This record gives sequence, C-alpha cells and structure tokens, in this order.
Amino acid sequence: MILANEHFGKLQASYLFSEIAKRVAAYQQANPEAKIIRLGIGDVTLPLAAACREAMHKAVDELGRAETFRGYGPEQGYAFLREAIAKNDYQARGCDIAPGEIFVSDGSKCDCANIQELFAQDLRIAIPDPVYPVYVDTNVMAGRTGAAEQGRYAGLRYLDSTAENGFVPAPPAEPVDLVYLCFPNNPTGATATKAQLKAWVDYAKANKALILFDAAYEAFIRDPALPRSIYEIEGAKEVAIEFRSFSKKAGFTGVRCAFTVVPENLVAYGRDGAPVRLHPMWNRRHTTKFNGVSYPVQRAAEAVYSPEGARQTAGQVDYYLENAKLIRQGVQALGYACVGGDNSPYIWVNVKGDSWAFFDRLLRQAQVVTTPGAGFGRQGEGYIRISAFNSRENVEAAMARIAAALRA
Amino acid sequence: MILANEHFGKLQASYLFSEIAKRVAAYQQANPEAKIIRLGIGDVTLPLAAACREAMHKAVDELGRAETFRGYGPEQGYAFLREAIAKNDYQARGCDIAPGEIFVSDGSKCDCANIQELFAQDLRIAIPDPVYPVYVDTNVMAGRTGAAEQGRYAGLRYLDSTAENGFVPAPPAEPVDLVYLCFPNNPTGATATKAQLKAWVDYAKANKALILFDAAYEAFIRDPALPRSIYEIEGAKEVAIEFRSFSKKAGFTGVRCAFTVVPENLVAYGRDGAPVRLHPMWNRRHTTKFNGVSYPVQRAAEAVYSPEGARQTAGQVDYYLENAKLIRQGVQALGYACVGGDNSPYIWVNVKGDSWAFFDRLLRQAQVVTTPGAGFGRQGEGYIRISAFNSRENVEAAMARIAAALRA
Repeated sequence: MILANEHFGKLQASYLFSEIAKRVAAYQQANPEAKIIRLGIGDVTLPLAAACREAMHKAVDELGRAETFRGYGPEQGYAFLREAIAKNDYQARGCDIAPGEIFVSDGSKCDCANIQELFAQDLRIAIPDPVYPVYVDTNVMAGRTGAAEQGRYAGLRYLDSTAENGFVPAPPAEPVDLVYLCFPNNPTGATATKAQLKAWVDYAKANKALILFDAAYEAFIRDPALPRSIYEIEGAKEVAIEFRSFSKKAGFTGVRCAFTVVPENLVAYGRDGAPVRLHPMWNRRHTTKFNGVSYPVQRAAEAVYSPEGARQTAGQVDYYLENAKLIRQGVQALGYACVGGDNSPYIWVNVKGDSWAFFDRLLRQAQVVTTPGAGFGRQGEGYIRISAFNSRENVEAAMARIAAALRA
Repeated sequence: MILANEHFGKLQASYLFSEIAKRVAAYQQANPEAKIIRLGIGDVTLPLAAACREAMHKAVDELGRAETFRGYGPEQGYAFLREAIAKNDYQARGCDIAPGEIFVSDGSKCDCANIQELFAQDLRIAIPDPVYPVYVDTNVMAGRTGAAEQGRYAGLRYLDSTAENGFVPAPPAEPVDLVYLCFPNNPTGATATKAQLKAWVDYAKANKALILFDAAYEAFIRDPALPRSIYEIEGAKEVAIEFRSFSKKAGFTGVRCAFTVVPENLVAYGRDGAPVRLHPMWNRRHTTKFNGVSYPVQRAAEAVYSPEGARQTAGQVDYYLENAKLIRQGVQALGYACVGGDNSPYIWVNVKGDSWAFFDRLLRQAQVVTTPGAGFGRQGEGYIRISAFNSRENVEAAMARIAAALRA
C-alpha cells in the first residue's frame, strides 16, 4: 500500500497568498466594478529592463542557429553568470566569494525550500516570527516539527521580531543548530546592522550552528552603513549560506532566476562530530534534482550586471523605494507606527487590532489589497504588510483611498 | 551542532554524466586535436524550432511593456499551456485528463526527483535495472534505502530488464508500494505494449501500489499500436502519475519546460488505510517550493502545439529517428545485438564485455562518446547506450569510425 507523507497533514490551512487571492477574487466577483489596487503580494510591476530583453532576444536567436545552439547547460549555471555575480555582488564589496561558490537556480523560493535536504532530521531550528512561510512549511513537510498549536509548530524555536527589539531578534540564550534570517526582512522591512549580524555569526561559530541568510531584498539597501551580504561580516563564510534573487532586484518574478552561495569550506557535522563539507552536498543535490536555468534567462540575468542593465534595474528599485516612502509617510500621517520602507520595499504597519480584519477592511473600504501580518506568524498579529511594488499612480491612489477609509 | 543528512554519504561515486564528462575532458586535454563526437548524454542538437523562438520573442516583448508585463504566474503553469497540453497530448488520444491535472515545471528531472516527497519513508520501492539514476539517488538522499553493495542499495526491489524479458520487466510476485517505469525506456530504448502496461496497472490496483510513469520520450513512438501515455490503459488514472518533458519532444534541454500529470482522484493512503488525495498534496508542494516556469518559456512550449510548431518539432524527432536507424543498422552490421532506436532515440548495445572498458575503447579508438551501461545499474553491465541526438553528418562519421575501430 502506497503510504502518503503524513507530515503534510500538519500543514496549516492553505498557503498565505492563496488565501489572500481567494478573498480578493470573492470580493471582486461580488463587486465586479471595483478597481482593486494590489499592494499585497510582493510582485514587481515595471516592465523588464531593456538590457535584459535585448540579452534574451539575442539568446533566443542563438538557439535558432546550429552553430550557436545550446542544450543542457551546467546545472550550477553558466560560468559567464557565476563570474558576473561573484565579481559584482561580492568581490566588489570586499566579500571573498568565488564563482564556483555560486549556484544559479530558477528561484529563491526553491533554494530556501530545498536547502533543508542537506541536513539531518533531528535539528533545533530557529525561525523568526513573523516569517516568510516557506522556511517553516518546508521543514514541516520534511517531518522536522510536531503538530501546530495556536499557529506554532512544536519543535521549532521561534525568534520573536517585535517593536521591542526593533524587529531584529538577538541570538537566543540556548544553542540551536539551524537559523533562518532574512534582511532586509520579509515581511517587516526591517534591516540588520553589521553589529547585529556579527552577533549571529559569533553565536553560530560558538554553537556550530548554520545560518541560512535570505538576502532577496538586498538591492533595496541605500544606507551605505548597512550590510548587503552576510559575507560582509567577518567569519560568516564559515557559518552561513546566502540566498539571492533577481526577482526584486531586476523585476524577474516572471522570468525566474536566483542563486545560492555555498562557501567551499563551509561544513556541517556527522554524528561523530567530523566535519562534512556542504558545497559538494549541495552540488550533488543540484546536479541530481535540477537541470539548470533556461539559457536565455541566464543571459538576461548576466545583463543585469552590464553598465546599462545595472543603471536600468537600479532605476526600477529607486522607483519602488519612492513608492515605499509615500506609503510610509502616508501611514505615519494617519497615526500608525511602522517599520521598513526606507531600505526595503515593505512597510510593516501596526494596525492596533486584528490583522485579517484590517486586511478585510482595507479590501472592502479602500479596495486595496495588503497582506495580513498574522499570515506570517503569531508576532505578525496586529500588523499588515504593505508592498511598494506597483505604479506611482496606483500607490498614490491607494494611499488616498486608505486615508479616506481610515479617517471615515 | 548542525548535523548533515547522513544519507548523502550512501550515494555512490559521482553522478554518471559527471564521470563521463570527466573522462572525456581528460581525453580531450591529452589529445587536443581529437574531434570527439558525442553520442553519450541524450542532449538535442537541432536549433530550436522557429515557432518556439517566435513565441519567446513575442513574450519577451510583452514583458517590456507595462500593459502586457507579467510577474509571478500561477505556480502550476499558465492556463493557456495546461489547456494545450490536456487537449493535444491527452484528450486527442482518448485520455480523460483535464488542464487542472497538469502541473507545469522546469524539468522532468526535478519532477521525478521531487515526487517522492509526497510519500512516507518506509516504502517498498521497485526500480528497474538498468535505470535513469535520478529515481534511485533521490530516494537514497531521502533515506529510503540502506547502504549500497555491489551497485545495489539495500531495501530497493530491482526489476531486471534483460534480453530475456525483452527489457520490459513484468510485475514481481510480491507486493511493492511504489514503482518507477519509463517507456520508451531510458537507457534501453525498449518500448512497452499496452498489454504489458496493463499488467502493471492491474498489479498496482491489486496491491494499492502507485506507478510513477516517465514518458519523457513518448514523442519518439511511431508505431501506432504502442501507448504514448499510461493513461491509454484503462484504470491507470487510479494508480499512476505521468511525467512528460519538452526536452526531447521539442529540443528544450536548454530552454527548460516539462510537466507532471496528477489525476484529481488519485490517492495514497494513511497508516489507517484511509485514502489521501495526491493532487492537493502535489499542489501544496508545488506552490510552497516552486514559483512557476519562466513566462517566455511557457509561451515557447505552447507554440509546440500550434500547427507550425507541431510540424517543426515532429520534423526534428523524425530527424533523430533517422539517426537512430543508422546507428541501429550500423551496430547490427558489426555483429552486435541491440534494442531500441525504432521508437526511441536510444540504442542499447550488447558489447559482449565490460561496459566502461568498451566506453573507453570507443573514446580512444573512435573518438566517440557513448554511455556505459554499467552506470545505469547492474543489468547495464555488458551494454552501452548510444544516443541519436546529433547531426546526421556526425552520426555517419561516428558509425564509420566505430566500424573501423571495432573491425581493426
């Protein structure tokens, strides 16, 4: 008899964004004339940069000629892209990361989800709260948690990210083995200083723990004092894996490209305490279970590092950051406390009440979609996330509608 | 302390194609003037069809305009593609498969690798021998096997595919829970008749087993009596998941698109014997751990079903089948028994000796790369796989060189 993976049964309700989509669809169906503005899911809206489109067109043409056709590429990504990433994203910022430590993939969601396969089953895992649901759900599916109770899974160590700690949790007093961190944070928009990350790196070294650092939003950092990569912290190469994406940096949510950095000498341990290098393990996983990113997509990603592409994509990020500023100022003017929106595309608003109720209120009274904080964890209750990914016109209209609704 | 997944340590040597690449690179370095012809890894060589390129160009242009820009798509694939697949690949052949049962992905390797996550740990798994290594290795990584001994993992039930059974194993006498089947087969090129698949479907129903049917090479079937999908067999929707790919059907190995069919009412079971539907489980897995296929790629795949695209890609398959015929006739003329190459791009040749030694001999004496059968399992020893994916000119040259080398 074919037995199902029983751990799937522990997963709570449906995935956050599916639930939002359901509620929005129901509202739209009941109110077909409503012009809904979506500041919920963090999806880019600006057209793909010209440099990236030109690179894709050229690559498609190459596939059309026998002499330039390419079939299977290296599963880890083409050298041209791994080299551009290592040079521009790391070496240019003083991080000693080599092209061979870059693994190109079709999305950070996949990478964040798949990385846990490299580790044993019985781990002490620290998860921020609120948190991007993928970190938790993939560990639930893999059987590393108990059942959920009041929104929290037994066996996980939750790191409360609250107004009290500025939404940047400090390392816990007790040892854990695996830590998920994300800065600029999704969903809060909070950023971590070098000193704050240094405390985590030191903790990981002291406890032989591993940090999974999600830097999907690093392109939004404008404050030069803030670290864009965990590898800007001394010693991080010994204790951290970093995830990066072109989704938000270059508007690739529909194009699909990301990468993961696994330093050559990073180790986990066997039960006897002997070090086990993670680079060959991830390489084996990547070559066995993945077949590389579409060639034209890799060329588009490479173009992000060309002078034209860098200028165009930085301009897009600036545009979203200007939106973020409008949102932040708008909610503050309405008397709501918030974090994020300066070095991140997300604004995390304290709504002084139930977050799904506030979500529903904004949907019904302002026809604006946000993301209820409760969907990100217990500490998200009382908050909503507003995303800056939309047109200026829509952001201005949304903030005017929200102001009218909340003042009413 | 962060503990590594101990099961990775059971994996044998490196992945087959990495080992081949290493030997070929070493030979090329020692013999820089050698013009090596690659009939090893099954990678297409013909330029991407014009219809697919046009569709990609158009999609890239759409991404360049705000009014037609698309960000995140549905993780399961766009409706336009799921509908084209259901209609053309299934309904047109009498298989009752709906668009909602199609999950679009970036590769069959990923799908075949990921599907095991839906099942419990303690399964009786039947694996053909020889076999595409991904089925085995992903179950090893997941901890469903014991250690390997003489090329076989403890805990797996191997299904010998030999000349005696025409390389199509019959169901075993004892019950198993999960069965991997692949027809047209990789690596042997053998095909299964409807009666042979019917025996497996009946076995699965009788034993509440599940069949994972890899149909990546179905486009090469030219004999109208042979099934192209397991769903052509009555009752298969109750017991089978099917994997399909555009890689070989339309030359997408560098473009990346595939799909998996999970019938709506297909079930696995809880430990209490209660049925658990697999469709929502795979949907949850897909939406949690994957973010959809690149939009231009999905448009290229849709174009495979346009009249022009269907004609162009069928022409490519015909071309490779003509190559396959030349290879089959060539090795037979040299006195070697073989299977495959008529309804498949692979020819499985009995080399009457050690398969890695024969691989090395062809590499050194004919500068032709093949795939040693031993890399596919114990029953692959004594065979090599020759792939028809190359230009006519190269296939003719390779066969002439092989003939000269083997007659010498």
